[in-house]
Amino acid sequence: MSLHSSTRVADVRVTPIAFRDPPLLNVAGVHEPWALRSIIEIEMTDGRIGLGESYGDLQTLANLARVAPQLVGIDVFDTNTLIRIVYAAVGGDPDPAAPFPPKGDKARATAVAAFEVALLDLQAKVAGQPLYQLLGGAVRPALPLSAYLFYKFALHHGMEQDVADDWGEVLTPAQMVGEAQRMVAQYGFGSIKLKGGVFAPEVEIDALLALRDAFPGMPLRIDPNGGWTVQTTRRVLPALAANGLLEYLEDPVSTLQEMGEVARFADGMPLATNMVTIAFGHVPETVRLHAVQVILSDHHYWGGLRATQQLATIGRTFGLGISMHSNSHLGISLAAMTHVGVTIPNLRYACDTHYPWQVDEVITGGKLPIRGGQLAPPPGNGLGVTLDRGQLARLHRNYLDCGIRVRNDAGEMRKHQPGFDDRRPRF
Amino acid sequence: MSLHSSTRVADVRVTPIAFRDPPLLNVAGVHEPWALRSIIEIEMTDGRIGLGESYGDLQTLANLARVAPQLVGIDVFDTNTLIRIVYAAVGGDPDPAAPFPPKGDKARATAVAAFEVALLDLQAKVAGQPLYQLLGGAVRPALPLSAYLFYKFALHHGMEQDVADDWGEVLTPAQMVGEAQRMVAQYGFGSIKLKGGVFAPEVEIDALLALRDAFPGMPLRIDPNGGWTVQTTRRVLPALAANGLLEYLEDPVSTLQEMGEVARFADGMPLATNMVTIAFGHVPETVRLHAVQVILSDHHYWGGLRATQQLATIGRTFGLGISMHSNSHLGISLAAMTHVGVTIPNLRYACDTHYPWQVDEVITGGKLPIRGGQLAPPPGNGLGVTLDRGQLARLHRNYLDCGIRVRNDAGEMRKHQPGFDDRRPRF
Repeated sequence: MSLHSSTRVADVRVTPIAFRDPPLLNVAGVHEPWALRSIIEIEMTDGRIGLGESYGDLQTLANLARVAPQLVGIDVFDTNTLIRIVYAAVGGDPDPAAPFPPKGDKARATAVAAFEVALLDLQAKVAGQPLYQLLGGAVRPALPLSAYLFYKFALHHGMEQDVADDWGEVLTPAQMVGEAQRMVAQYGFGSIKLKGGVFAPEVEIDALLALRDAFPGMPLRIDPNGGWTVQTTRRVLPALAANGLLEYLEDPVSTLQEMGEVARFADGMPLATNMVTIAFGHVPETVRLHAVQVILSDHHYWGGLRATQQLATIGRTFGLGISMHSNSHLGISLAAMTHVGVTIPNLRYACDTHYPWQVDEVITGGKLPIRGGQLAPPPGNGLGVTLDRGQLARLHRNYLDCGIRVRNDAGEMRKHQPGFDDRRPRF
Repeated sequence: MSLHSSTRVADVRVTPIAFRDPPLLNVAGVHEPWALRSIIEIEMTDGRIGLGESYGDLQTLANLARVAPQLVGIDVFDTNTLIRIVYAAVGGDPDPAAPFPPKGDKARATAVAAFEVALLDLQAKVAGQPLYQLLGGAVRPALPLSAYLFYKFALHHGMEQDVADDWGEVLTPAQMVGEAQRMVAQYGFGSIKLKGGVFAPEVEIDALLALRDAFPGMPLRIDPNGGWTVQTTRRVLPALAANGLLEYLEDPVSTLQEMGEVARFADGMPLATNMVTIAFGHVPETVRLHAVQVILSDHHYWGGLRATQQLATIGRTFGLGISMHSNSHLGISLAAMTHVGVTIPNLRYACDTHYPWQVDEVITGGKLPIRGGQLAPPPGNGLGVTLDRGQLARLHRNYLDCGIRVRNDAGEMRKHQPGFDDRRPRF
């Protein structure tokens, strides 16, 4: 331990937070007024701090809490020991060399990722480099992001006003075009993704057609989150494919088997997923079924930034496109996505992000600036972001006070529509 | 450039060398008296030097020479720019994001690897870490290696004595057991690989049986280098499988298609390869045919140490075992193999190395110490090895004087056996 004792972990802190979230609609219901997240701090023996951000649900927090104290004393470069500790602490085969389980290992990969990003942040600081350099260097100056459009209510149930959400109601094609126009004007996005699965497919296709009219030539996508049956998908595919309406169709159905069925009649329409291929163990069956053409990677559940790069190599090897998925998140996650995203040559699609919907931030200096539809890696060594401790304390207080411990979009929706049924497929 | 100007490449030197090599037999003929290699030095703006080692044939040297001057000025962390430069300078699709070509891209991957190792050596020095730490930390203290047994002549053609080779003639089972006993006694190896394809399979199986008698329980392998037909392999497989004689059978046949045929009747005998799956572009067909169970990785032609880790992840994803292949090499290559090898959890087989056959060395302090059949990463930051400039000059002089520019085992064999036919399959 003596040789590199200056690069050892001295302390690990995991702070659950809650930040305000608009009433965004999806197949499962509607976003609650508070989104949960965890902020990971790894303090090195020399006092420098590496940051990570992950989910804030009880199960994730329990897993992170199980792992955190065991990381004290490991070298910040030794991510293999992080993985070994996570495998021993979080359910599943404790052998980190065993084949990836075909059913996935999201809990373990999530715990690895949460801490790995913080360790990489420290590694890059030790090396005196921005994180993208430690990850092999940038192949592009900034990460292209897409406008992530949602149907939404004007207000959360029971609210009479919301100073944190001035987007108003978005339920019609015209309102959706308005949302898109504001988002594109504000951030310069060059791609549009519509969160679908809320209304019947034909209704959502009307919104896509209105977006096409308003944004000629701009790549469009729709993501019904597995809300359609195979039969429904077959019925609406011609309208989605007509005149090149869609760049890709994301998760129309909810199982890998069904995606394979859709792929057989998709007739050239690329299928994307962040639902059926979400772990290395899912890749062989994905390849065998030719079920997916674009994997929406997500370092939070694929096992971190190095794992994301490995996934990208698998994509290049098997002819699968790579983009990025997003959950509601703050700037640490976005910085991590950006640093790794600029290093991946075959990341050829603008990435998803919920970031424009968030008004809170936990990093110093407030929200990161998306310009021209892109985000450049924040300047400085490591991730290039630091914690605003005042905001962290405030957002942690939100967590303590908000009463939400596990995300429940369906329960929230039932406050608006008491009979809401979140079973899938809905259409 | 100003922010990190201290980590830029100031100079790149590629020095061809030749070192003495014993008359080792294989399916292609016999090793010549000199083995060729290239030593890569990348000097950083602060004067520190990163080392690499690669092939020394004319084509490789030409590719390295094309790339080397273009690396001046790049950041030592920016391996993506290295890759872009190589793709533009060495034949094939110049787009580093294009799918890996199904026919492989050995020339480009070789050039990337030669320089990548030297850049990683520098990166680790900048970070103040042993290279294995930069690569994610060691999962084992040392890299297990296997005794690499060869049939051999006592002397090269025309030599009357050879002070650099006191192994004598090895052509019979008894002589092979003697070779193995000396090698195991000297280095403590716990696995044995026999280079086959030299004699009829039944003759080589006699040698394996003699080795089995002399080393009960020790894992044995044979590598005929694609020297057998599918029919021959079918004929001898029962003898190879009897009583668990072999740990795995390496490259009995010479095409991926044929390996797939062998796999269908191999009946549980794992098939290994460093001949039919030697690039990411070969992996999909390998998986489709279930042709191979163990990939013998080799950072020199897979594209470097990060690529080797990515291959290992592919192996874990698709249930393929990972080990390591070797050509005749010196200590820089062995140090690189060791640093990456100790970081790969699913490297479950002892790795090949020709190192015990070499008497020359180009690194300070002479040969690296294999003990108990393993090599620990050389201590210190980066690769942990430095150049002995006197030896480099001597070995470069050998290169200039020896007259060999492209390895030609068949031509060398025809000095011994004028009618030697190196066409494969031989048996």
